[in-house]
Amino acid sequence: MRTIEWKTRKVKIIDQTKLPRKLEFVYLKTLSDVIRAIKELKIRGAPAIGVAAAYGMVLGYPNLKDAARKLIASRPTANSIAWAVERMLKVKGGKDQLLAEANKMAEEDIKINRAIGRNGAKLIKSGMNILTQCNAGSLATVDYGTALGVIRAAFDEGKKIHVYVPETRPVLQGSRLTAWELKQSKIPFTLITDNMVGYLMAEGKVDIVIVGADRIAKNGDVANKIGTYQIAVLAKHHGIPFYVAAPRSVIDKNVRTGKDIIIEQRDPKEVIEILGIKIAPKGINVFNPAFDITPAELISGYINEKGIFKPSPA
Amino acid sequence: MRTIEWKTRKVKIIDQTKLPRKLEFVYLKTLSDVIRAIKELKIRGAPAIGVAAAYGMVLGYPNLKDAARKLIASRPTANSIAWAVERMLKVKGGKDQLLAEANKMAEEDIKINRAIGRNGAKLIKSGMNILTQCNAGSLATVDYGTALGVIRAAFDEGKKIHVYVPETRPVLQGSRLTAWELKQSKIPFTLITDNMVGYLMAEGKVDIVIVGADRIAKNGDVANKIGTYQIAVLAKHHGIPFYVAAPRSVIDKNVRTGKDIIIEQRDPKEVIEILGIKIAPKGINVFNPAFDITPAELISGYINEKGIFKPSPA
Repeated sequence: MRTIEWKTRKVKIIDQTKLPRKLEFVYLKTLSDVIRAIKELKIRGAPAIGVAAAYGMVLGYPNLKDAARKLIASRPTANSIAWAVERMLKVKGGKDQLLAEANKMAEEDIKINRAIGRNGAKLIKSGMNILTQCNAGSLATVDYGTALGVIRAAFDEGKKIHVYVPETRPVLQGSRLTAWELKQSKIPFTLITDNMVGYLMAEGKVDIVIVGADRIAKNGDVANKIGTYQIAVLAKHHGIPFYVAAPRSVIDKNVRTGKDIIIEQRDPKEVIEILGIKIAPKGINVFNPAFDITPAELISGYINEKGIFKPSPA
Repeated sequence: MRTIEWKTRKVKIIDQTKLPRKLEFVYLKTLSDVIRAIKELKIRGAPAIGVAAAYGMVLGYPNLKDAARKLIASRPTANSIAWAVERMLKVKGGKDQLLAEANKMAEEDIKINRAIGRNGAKLIKSGMNILTQCNAGSLATVDYGTALGVIRAAFDEGKKIHVYVPETRPVLQGSRLTAWELKQSKIPFTLITDNMVGYLMAEGKVDIVIVGADRIAKNGDVANKIGTYQIAVLAKHHGIPFYVAAPRSVIDKNVRTGKDIIIEQRDPKEVIEILGIKIAPKGINVFNPAFDITPAELISGYINEKGIFKPSPA
């Protein structure tokens, strides 16, 4: 089952805002549909929204420059949208050629993720407890996943593993999406709240951390889901290896360090409400950065389709 | 408005599970009512449940040994219940004398918190951003609060301060209770999710951390709400002072280090559901420790009714 695919003039996606309660598909017919789906997190995860942007360009034809601009503005932190859109702008020909290129990118994404999985699985030994963050799984990609791709590959190789899943407030990609995926794949896991990570590490219950990435600066600094940075600091404090698993398409060579990466600020509602239920008093100040920056010095290595790299990805 | 008080043969408490949506009072008529209210977190916070336990002893009269045993078992991590119950067991006389002692403890609690506030406020300078955790406020005590007592005292002295409030999953004492209290007191604050703490610190937005405590071991290790430990590690990493504000009654001289403190494990439901709404798939493993241990070496000082102490409280 793919997170995103082209179906006769439309983009079919899993509506991730409905999970884990309902597995529901939506069909995006226009560029505006695609942009709205990205903004509302019906589809999320750097590789998945990269492919969504590619299909958005198909639907935006022939106004490609305008489509490119709007898609890039939809979520500013992930590099994958800009990367996909630039690739689409280089396509020679009309709508058919654009669609062929977008479909090729979708196929490539799966191959890349399987390669990331194979490469990263070398780090995983039987008996290991792996901590991840957010959802860098099949739902964050066309299929298979990046950080969860590594976990999936290790599991498929017969290694006995167990995953700790932080729920990842405010949008709960951990409890809603990663827990759902791991349950489907029968990979053993335990759900925790985001403030239990340090305690687990102190108790010796985490052997390795593997997370995804939304953008990687030239020096190796990583933008990823809010909370990633503090997990990296905690891993360092406890002497636990911390790996980033992400395709090379998230590397942004135009950005020197993490300081130059724009951090998307999202609606305070995501913090004040949980699935529509108010959990805080009205009319208060809220801070809601969707991402944070993990500096390269906290990262043990970068797992991508070419191998495992340090001190910066290649 | 008091969190807990005796009203003609009954214990009147604010039902904290209803906040911030409703300010509702419940009347506890029997020892079982008190125990249930403590277990269900209708009343929580070490000082508040200490006073609740004292009133529980009044309602349990004349079966005091049995009442003591049941009250201590209701929540194993906080020292205040054992402390209060032992004090009540020393009372000579009947129900009237017991009630007089419990009332005295309630009055003392407020005085102690005001002293903690005065002592701790010396650490706070105008312009400071203070991070707290959970709720160590007036709702965690009879009135005024411990960590929030310090914040309250600094604010009342006219210092311009701003508080960062982590929501404190799973039970959301930060977003539901601390945000409500600070809003009522007109103390400026910003609500965040628990995984934003590291990012805030990296951005230089936190000047000092002040938290409460449920039990303090002889060596200064502190049991407090889950998440406190990782905040302390993050504070250390960023060179931010980390203080514990708690009455001397939470010091347990029978416990040498934090390793000997029992950590209460609570219902997985608290993690899987938020205010009755399911946020994760059914039938999954969940970890739900209510507290964690912060080792003394991560603590800059202990604020209590006698002053500010280090390296261990006195």
